[in-house]
Amino acid sequence: MGSPKSFQTPTGTRDWYPADANRRRFLTEAWRSASLRHAFEEIDGPTFETLDLYTVKSGEGIVSELFSFQRFGGEKTYALRPEFTPTLARLYAAKASSLPKPTRWFTLGPMFRAERPQRGRLREFLQWNCDVLGDPSPQADADIIAVCIGLLEQLGLTPADVRVKLSNRNLVRDIALSCGLPDDKADAWFAYLDGEAKRSAGENEAFLVHRGVSLLVRDRWMQLLESVRNMGSDADQFNVERFGMKLETIEQHRDLLVRLRSMGLLPWCDMLDMTIVRGLAYYTGMVFEVHEASGGERALAGGGRYDKLIELFGGPPTPAVGFGMGDVVLSLVLQDRGLMPSDADLADRAGMRPDAFVISNGTPEADAVLPAVVAALRKAAPGLPGLHARRSAKETRNIGKLLQEATKLNARFAIILESGSSCTVKDLTSGRQELMDIANVVVRLRQFLNRAP
Amino acid sequence: MGSPKSFQTPTGTRDWYPADANRRRFLTEAWRSASLRHAFEEIDGPTFETLDLYTVKSGEGIVSELFSFQRFGGEKTYALRPEFTPTLARLYAAKASSLPKPTRWFTLGPMFRAERPQRGRLREFLQWNCDVLGDPSPQADADIIAVCIGLLEQLGLTPADVRVKLSNRNLVRDIALSCGLPDDKADAWFAYLDGEAKRSAGENEAFLVHRGVSLLVRDRWMQLLESVRNMGSDADQFNVERFGMKLETIEQHRDLLVRLRSMGLLPWCDMLDMTIVRGLAYYTGMVFEVHEASGGERALAGGGRYDKLIELFGGPPTPAVGFGMGDVVLSLVLQDRGLMPSDADLADRAGMRPDAFVISNGTPEADAVLPAVVAALRKAAPGLPGLHARRSAKETRNIGKLLQEATKLNARFAIILESGSSCTVKDLTSGRQELMDIANVVVRLRQFLNRAP
Repeated sequence: MGSPKSFQTPTGTRDWYPADANRRRFLTEAWRSASLRHAFEEIDGPTFETLDLYTVKSGEGIVSELFSFQRFGGEKTYALRPEFTPTLARLYAAKASSLPKPTRWFTLGPMFRAERPQRGRLREFLQWNCDVLGDPSPQADADIIAVCIGLLEQLGLTPADVRVKLSNRNLVRDIALSCGLPDDKADAWFAYLDGEAKRSAGENEAFLVHRGVSLLVRDRWMQLLESVRNMGSDADQFNVERFGMKLETIEQHRDLLVRLRSMGLLPWCDMLDMTIVRGLAYYTGMVFEVHEASGGERALAGGGRYDKLIELFGGPPTPAVGFGMGDVVLSLVLQDRGLMPSDADLADRAGMRPDAFVISNGTPEADAVLPAVVAALRKAAPGLPGLHARRSAKETRNIGKLLQEATKLNARFAIILESGSSCTVKDLTSGRQELMDIANVVVRLRQFLNRAP
Repeated sequence: MGSPKSFQTPTGTRDWYPADANRRRFLTEAWRSASLRHAFEEIDGPTFETLDLYTVKSGEGIVSELFSFQRFGGEKTYALRPEFTPTLARLYAAKASSLPKPTRWFTLGPMFRAERPQRGRLREFLQWNCDVLGDPSPQADADIIAVCIGLLEQLGLTPADVRVKLSNRNLVRDIALSCGLPDDKADAWFAYLDGEAKRSAGENEAFLVHRGVSLLVRDRWMQLLESVRNMGSDADQFNVERFGMKLETIEQHRDLLVRLRSMGLLPWCDMLDMTIVRGLAYYTGMVFEVHEASGGERALAGGGRYDKLIELFGGPPTPAVGFGMGDVVLSLVLQDRGLMPSDADLADRAGMRPDAFVISNGTPEADAVLPAVVAALRKAAPGLPGLHARRSAKETRNIGKLLQEATKLNARFAIILESGSSCTVKDLTSGRQELMDIANVVVRLRQFLNRAP
């Protein structure tokens, strides 16, 4: 064994002490319950995949953003998953013929990016994904937006805190074409929009000129944008007259807005944010991002429709729509808004509040039965959940001090062993107490706690 | 985008379709509840650590068993965690002065080994760990064994299914010395015992002779072993007379057995299995493994006392005891014993049973309000858990067929929208139904489900 040294948490990763782990549990359980009540089923894949699963979708350029490795003496190259969609596509493609239509899947777990960590962006983070596969209808788009908003609302966020910015790549393309964009410049236009906010005015003009896009297109686009901004959240304002052009994609987007209105979700949404096109080329229709209202943080969530991707992974042609939400920005926003419960509250929710704190009165008879009482309280079997029981690890025999310890731990009951056969059960909330046979204490305490088997 | 191809799950890893994910959830929630009711707090660390965190404890030899990697253009070498103890030691060492004494921590999550997969052994698996830090007492040893047995019992396993094989490295060493083993051959003896079952009789003799250990030592040891086997699970039989030698380590082990008896746990235990020494050199006292009773599987769990390890990671001298349990062998044993609940039962436990299945009677008025009803049922906020509501994705308007779908999904209630303002709520278990205003349906259904806010 070597000499003692000190070790560091790897850059961009996190340690989870109990209070941190309870916050994590709070988020993952919120994700889980939002998914389940919106009728999504859980799936997952390995933490790493073969590298080619990522290059097929994103090209070789992604390799520098991945943690990739080989087994010692092995030949295959693997990579820690940077996102879940390729795994989802692989799972769907492998069993497509036997899966329900539509298939509604969620997952949550760690993802990895080999980047320089920044505010809101770590090398290891948690991500929640929901996807609807096999349903081309705009209702599937609305369902995906609904589960995302459902989570935000469940955590106490409101439309004043977060905005769901809706867009549609086909609509953006059609409008740009109507503004005079040449047919073959659509990709350049998406790239322009995707980076617009990060470039200076001069850089933006140079970007377009360099790609052979006339600045007149941009000017017409800006005028339209202004008109669209004035619509607010009134779906009736969203019509072909407003745009001064008749496009099928306008009607399709309007259909989505009407559905969201019927679900009561439109107040959360910016009806059309044409700056949102999502960088990834695999999106084929509706896209959206969720941002903190001031715009001061990175996106909380993002997603859209990707109708060609399952085929790319060897599956049948399958319309699909989904989104991902990370834990890092979400935590920042909740903390900023005072919506992250206190450490004490989270500890209780996590199950750390003891049901019973068992104390000996200091006699040898009581000392002798204490381990058996604690064990009997904790005992569990299928159909019989055990109780959370504790004893002091301290040396003191002072009953007052031990009751203080029970109170500090927020225990529901104290059980004071009075002899080898009788005990006082004290409700630490109401202060009421009752003397009883030790032989009855487990059954009685389950009754008090309303946790009979 | 390239041409379609088919992708494989990496060797030794698993995909988790919904039924698999529900089985995983069943185990992780069982681990969690056993931990909490035994007063352990959750912690976790990153999925990967710097490589030196693993070599400091296990030497450079471990590198070939790890998935290790560097960031593209980076200098540091990282490795996927093969076990949790180094991370635990790092976390404890970093905050030792501010942590409670004793500290009781649990964790659960994926671990990785770059080995050839075999039955019961995968490259990515889940592992549950519990540790007590800062408590040198045999009660801490007993507590660690208690939480492990608590989990087994909770899942329906009995002492006839699984055996907790207890041992103690100090006791094994002292007995071997009493059998004539030279002082400087203790490590050779541990190595002999650790591999004994995997070698042939001839290989075992050669192993000892090659290391300068007389076969007479082995013969005396075998005689003692026979005597120890006859003790059964009666702690009173475990005494210095039985061993024919007076050793402090015998008294210490007897103390542990008496504590386990007082907790009702001794029937689960083989009181002393001197073949169990745990390969890892960092164990310093009590060690144990849990095996399926027939001995036909790998160990379900293993652990022991490691009083020197925290120092090695830069922390203060800290007595510690803990264990790890993987999901792979545990799942095999549960399935073999018929103790893994059915897929349907697990789906219900996971929260996949709908509270309500909402159906339109086919009128335009009912169609129009259906999305709002589903959304209102699902609505959640802090302190207000949402309900799990579904609607059909099918084209059919046939109410009988839609009720069949609700029944097939095991929904608790069907809500049939009779118009834009009234609905029939049908309890699909009892068959009772009630006509009510749609405006009241959420409150009434929460009452029926006993889930008022």
